[in-house]
Amino acid sequence: MNTNKLSLGIVGGGPKSWIGHVHRISARFDDKYEIVAGVFSRNAKLSINFGKTLGISKDRCYSTFKEMALKESKRNDGIQVVSIMTPPSSHQIIAEKFIEKNINIISDKPFAGNLDQAKKLYKKIKSNKKIKYALTHNYSAYPMVREAKVLIEKDKIGKIEYVNVEYIQDWSGGTKINVRNAKKKLKWKIDNKIVGASAVLNEIGTHAYHLATYISGLKAEKIFADIKQISKKIKMDDNAQVMINFTNGAKGMFWTSVMAKGGVYGLRIRVFGSKGSLEWVQNDPNYLKLNPDKGAVRYLERGFHNAELSKKFSRIKFGHPEGYLDAFANIYREFADSLKNKSKKRYFYPNEDEGLETAKFINACKVSSKNKRWVKIK
Amino acid sequence: MNTNKLSLGIVGGGPKSWIGHVHRISARFDDKYEIVAGVFSRNAKLSINFGKTLGISKDRCYSTFKEMALKESKRNDGIQVVSIMTPPSSHQIIAEKFIEKNINIISDKPFAGNLDQAKKLYKKIKSNKKIKYALTHNYSAYPMVREAKVLIEKDKIGKIEYVNVEYIQDWSGGTKINVRNAKKKLKWKIDNKIVGASAVLNEIGTHAYHLATYISGLKAEKIFADIKQISKKIKMDDNAQVMINFTNGAKGMFWTSVMAKGGVYGLRIRVFGSKGSLEWVQNDPNYLKLNPDKGAVRYLERGFHNAELSKKFSRIKFGHPEGYLDAFANIYREFADSLKNKSKKRYFYPNEDEGLETAKFINACKVSSKNKRWVKIK
Amino acid sequence: MNTNKLSLGIVGGGPKSWIGHVHRISARFDDKYEIVAGVFSRNAKLSINFGKTLGISKDRCYSTFKEMALKESKRNDGIQVVSIMTPPSSHQIIAEKFIEKNINIISDKPFAGNLDQAKKLYKKIKSNKKIKYALTHNYSAYPMVREAKVLIEKDKIGKIEYVNVEYIQDWSGGTKINVRNAKKKLKWKIDNKIVGASAVLNEIGTHAYHLATYISGLKAEKIFADIKQISKKIKMDDNAQVMINFTNGAKGMFWTSVMAKGGVYGLRIRVFGSKGSLEWVQNDPNYLKLNPDKGAVRYLERGFHNAELSKKFSRIKFGHPEGYLDAFANIYREFADSLKNKSKKRYFYPNEDEGLETAKFINACKVSSKNKRWVKIK
Amino acid sequence: MNTNKLSLGIVGGGPKSWIGHVHRISARFDDKYEIVAGVFSRNAKLSINFGKTLGISKDRCYSTFKEMALKESKRNDGIQVVSIMTPPSSHQIIAEKFIEKNINIISDKPFAGNLDQAKKLYKKIKSNKKIKYALTHNYSAYPMVREAKVLIEKDKIGKIEYVNVEYIQDWSGGTKINVRNAKKKLKWKIDNKIVGASAVLNEIGTHAYHLATYISGLKAEKIFADIKQISKKIKMDDNAQVMINFTNGAKGMFWTSVMAKGGVYGLRIRVFGSKGSLEWVQNDPNYLKLNPDKGAVRYLERGFHNAELSKKFSRIKFGHPEGYLDAFANIYREFADSLKNKSKKRYFYPNEDEGLETAKFINACKVSSKNKRWVKIK
Repeated sequence: MNTNKLSLGIVGGGPKSWIGHVHRISARFDDKYEIVAGVFSRNAKLSINFGKTLGISKDRCYSTFKEMALKESKRNDGIQVVSIMTPPSSHQIIAEKFIEKNINIISDKPFAGNLDQAKKLYKKIKSNKKIKYALTHNYSAYPMVREAKVLIEKDKIGKIEYVNVEYIQDWSGGTKINVRNAKKKLKWKIDNKIVGASAVLNEIGTHAYHLATYISGLKAEKIFADIKQISKKIKMDDNAQVMINFTNGAKGMFWTSVMAKGGVYGLRIRVFGSKGSLEWVQNDPNYLKLNPDKGAVRYLERGFHNAELSKKFSRIKFGHPEGYLDAFANIYREFADSLKNKSKKRYFYPNEDEGLETAKFINACKVSSKNKRWVKIK
Repeated sequence: MNTNKLSLGIVGGGPKSWIGHVHRISARFDDKYEIVAGVFSRNAKLSINFGKTLGISKDRCYSTFKEMALKESKRNDGIQVVSIMTPPSSHQIIAEKFIEKNINIISDKPFAGNLDQAKKLYKKIKSNKKIKYALTHNYSAYPMVREAKVLIEKDKIGKIEYVNVEYIQDWSGGTKINVRNAKKKLKWKIDNKIVGASAVLNEIGTHAYHLATYISGLKAEKIFADIKQISKKIKMDDNAQVMINFTNGAKGMFWTSVMAKGGVYGLRIRVFGSKGSLEWVQNDPNYLKLNPDKGAVRYLERGFHNAELSKKFSRIKFGHPEGYLDAFANIYREFADSLKNKSKKRYFYPNEDEGLETAKFINACKVSSKNKRWVKIK
Repeated sequence: MNTNKLSLGIVGGGPKSWIGHVHRISARFDDKYEIVAGVFSRNAKLSINFGKTLGISKDRCYSTFKEMALKESKRNDGIQVVSIMTPPSSHQIIAEKFIEKNINIISDKPFAGNLDQAKKLYKKIKSNKKIKYALTHNYSAYPMVREAKVLIEKDKIGKIEYVNVEYIQDWSGGTKINVRNAKKKLKWKIDNKIVGASAVLNEIGTHAYHLATYISGLKAEKIFADIKQISKKIKMDDNAQVMINFTNGAKGMFWTSVMAKGGVYGLRIRVFGSKGSLEWVQNDPNYLKLNPDKGAVRYLERGFHNAELSKKFSRIKFGHPEGYLDAFANIYREFADSLKNKSKKRYFYPNEDEGLETAKFINACKVSSKNKRWVKIK
Repeated sequence: MNTNKLSLGIVGGGPKSWIGHVHRISARFDDKYEIVAGVFSRNAKLSINFGKTLGISKDRCYSTFKEMALKESKRNDGIQVVSIMTPPSSHQIIAEKFIEKNINIISDKPFAGNLDQAKKLYKKIKSNKKIKYALTHNYSAYPMVREAKVLIEKDKIGKIEYVNVEYIQDWSGGTKINVRNAKKKLKWKIDNKIVGASAVLNEIGTHAYHLATYISGLKAEKIFADIKQISKKIKMDDNAQVMINFTNGAKGMFWTSVMAKGGVYGLRIRVFGSKGSLEWVQNDPNYLKLNPDKGAVRYLERGFHNAELSKKFSRIKFGHPEGYLDAFANIYREFADSLKNKSKKRYFYPNEDEGLETAKFINACKVSSKNKRWVKIK
């Protein structure tokens, strides 16, 4: 076995989970992790059966995360990192258990199920200097998103004046969704006890808000939100629109929906500064549009001369498209590097600070939408 | 002379006016008007000089609209239609004078400088059954916009659930705009006495709101607006964002700006229904994107088999692009037809009803933005 | 009447002709011509009837071009310019008659029906120093095409190394075309006696070759062609592909078709130089893609800071699309200017030199395709 | 260890090789291979050092492929599959050695260095019924390329009439390339002894031709080629254009270049049939444009309702882009499946039949270009 690999345990992501699949491919991508333990089901037998297909030995297939944290922490070859990919409301309690055992964490988003959980988790992470924490806001790991972040840091578009971000999807599956098939199809995503504060905001909106702050370097100061159910029949909030006042005086608009009919699946961000603007869309992720206030629109391409930073986060040459998995794997790759490398190198993966920020935003949205007034983020 | 042509008079649109140029090309486009009179300057000599370049005889180049209304109405061959292309706050008073003389009107947008003027003008128009009134919300005259309108009427995307519209421009001219050059460059556009209720809403936003209602067939019922100055130095409102509750229960978002840096000039609308969605952008005006909830995205093309209605509003074959002027001219062409044709044919050009609606919307936005609350349109 | 206008006569373009419609709108666009005479049918009555709808007096509606040339040349107020929009094989004989009467000519493409006619016509034009001749290769009049031409003259992409041009259409009308409806629909376009040397090359290919030479500043030196009938049933050449060796050593490829199924209607050109490349497509005519060999792709936009030349050939502001008619009208506008302006100003409209060149190219293609060998252009 | 994994050996792809990196990621992607042996350098020490970074035990890091074939074939746990990613002219001799030892082969393209080698290799593969052979024409493994292939098989666009394919790149690196840096940068790619028959055709063109035949289901019958050096200074053929007559009577055009200046990196294919056409471009790989002869253009999206087949070759949901590596990995995944699965299931990965076909094509191109005549493929 490659002794350079980090040993990785997994909580969640069983056979039917697509995000589980994504995490595991990402972990394998750069050969920096060996998946050696996991909790794939509360049923011990099912957990073992699935673990087996991943090449995990029977005794390291657990049925509870507590058991896994306890037993792995006692092994000499115990896991160094745990990846958590369970529903949102369980993120905090699971993560805390591993933090107590000094095990590093990669957690799927959102940071936590609600603001209260988020604050507790944040405190817990900060209390343990031995571990590191990465949050898979994976869109921020696209090379051209990071290029955008750094172009803004370098003042290429001047002082930010406006941010427009949207993440819209269509969960209706091309059918008139109804209570029965929604429950079957969307599962815990329509149960607030599991999905947390807000279905659309915790599942999708959190990515969009994170992306806006990640690229712009700004935070929301005050927001005005309108969360609403657009589709009929299934009780869930499926649409949210938010006006944002950012800390530097910039304005912004945010829209997220899971009922934008037409098979639409769009994450798009535009940042306007005093000297130009930037645009990035996930459906064309290898390009970044830069509009200087004077002069031609530029299409910066991943890996090409015009986008030097992006090369660090790419694996293949310009002209050959990279996609969602390549970006997701960037978080795993960088996290491994940060665990091995003790230098003060800059890392770009999202962490607990960003996680707490998204939880504050979602909470403020709920308050604002209910009270129909501008709400301060705190 | 072609006796089939309507005789047309013009108020405004002197040598430096670009919209004047646009109106005159549109009037000539289909050979249905003969420009025979005009007020191009308050200075009689300048008015005559410019009129001459248009082939207008000296005695029909006037220096005030009142004089023109009076004298033309007394001639046997007096103008049948007047086109008004002066700054917004003068639209009402000018139009009223011609209405009194039973002269038909084509007016540039916005309908009026403010809601009070709009109501007066609306009443005046309705009081005279002999005349017709067209408002050049020209974007609604693009063939594929009308195709979209009719597709929605035919229930192709089901019940409308969400509308997202934006019209953003960059008036900074690629330079750090300052008070001095702004005054020179933007002229009356930054003077609220002339531009009317709101610079950004009267100049640009009015088009976006009109387009949203035109295509969707809906009206705003309640709105929450945030009008703001984003650029520094010049005192003017240059950015407005509005959340909209439509009459049928649909939600929507609206953004307009004249300080979206980067040479951006974008009018874009997306309408989401219960069975699919539509998207149209002015920069690619010959296409309409139709996303059914199940099945492939379709690019409907102007003039092609898949967009039958669009053929009625096109002059050239599919595959050959039409643009802004072709669309603008559609309003002149249809208006001429409606004046000659006494049948009950359906016409698609915007009229006073739509004009009043836009004025109500802008007024509500001002109230909402000031009071930071949802405001009912009435 | 505006005495600044040029008096224009028209040969061809009757009520069912779409190109006739295009020419007349173009002539009106900038108010520089007055259509005062015409031959719209060989049947005198039909010619008069149609002329009347255009406001032409009865005595100037002729039934033969000879009659028109003769009578108009004898009038004091006779036409100064004639526009010829008849089928290709008649272009030469008609043009010559007007040249003899010292009447300036705007002719639809192709220059002539075949090389023999082209040479005669060319000689005739050159023999009369009093007249000017414009050929409506209208695609060369798009502002961004001219921008491209001048960028290359300024060495922005270095020495030209490769040119790829295509103009493909689908004349099948979405149906399995057959002999009967083809004859009805395509009319003279499938009759070589009328369409001239080659249906696909004379009708469409001539534009593509002209565009390639216009933008690149190069001419073909040797070519290898393969002209072929792809669709079945109707006897006509509907597809032609040509390899080109240009005079400066550059290579190139050319493809034209009228049977590219799928409602495709695409004119596209890419020019590669030693320092970068340019791309323009008619379906997105307001933009020009510039790829420097180092640095980001640039989208130059008509009328914006980055495309200064284009402003001269535009009528409206950047951000508002122009189309086919705006470009076509540029030829009429510039031709009027060149007739009035005796200075040595540079004009960009296509003339007889370019016309002869296209005829040579088409002729060489026919020889090469027949003999299956490289043929020198001469 | 996961005993379900295939044990894989690698020949070539040392630390500086980008294609080596690509193959290894692809092998790991779906957890179906374990890399257990390799030849990474002719220098034993260097081979061991690099193998170590991949977690390969010292005794299985070899310095010649012969040694590896011999020793691995004697081990009980010897490799089941070898991946060959050496320069073209060595493909045949290496592959043959492993075929003799009954080891299955995944080979990088081109199939062989020249037609002679290709024929020998083909015969060798066919002579051993125990092994399977896959050729990494990776572009054919994009889900939407396979969707296109099957749509054509299902007669969605009718009988194929025309194919237009191009693969152009810019190897100049944004600098005026010269002999010295070319030798350093392009290495064996400009040495015909190593790259084989033709630099541009063996390296890039082979992909384009394969793609054209793969999607269309056709083969070239006769071709007319023009291979040429466009860039100066470095002796290599860098541009090739080919006219193709396909076996079913269809026509086609092919262009490949490595000196298409401007950072261009474009693989694009369009297939026209009697009822419509298809277009796919690698830079937007998750979409396939389908133009029916009547009706709107459709954008089929990977993984969506409209592209059922594509789901089989996807790992993530529609709306989330996949890229080059995901496609490359499809060949590894399917090959593993085909080795384990003895049923008659259909596999889509390219094999030796397609390999031989590409070699015939390249050979015919060389003959045609030299003799300036149409050449029959045989």
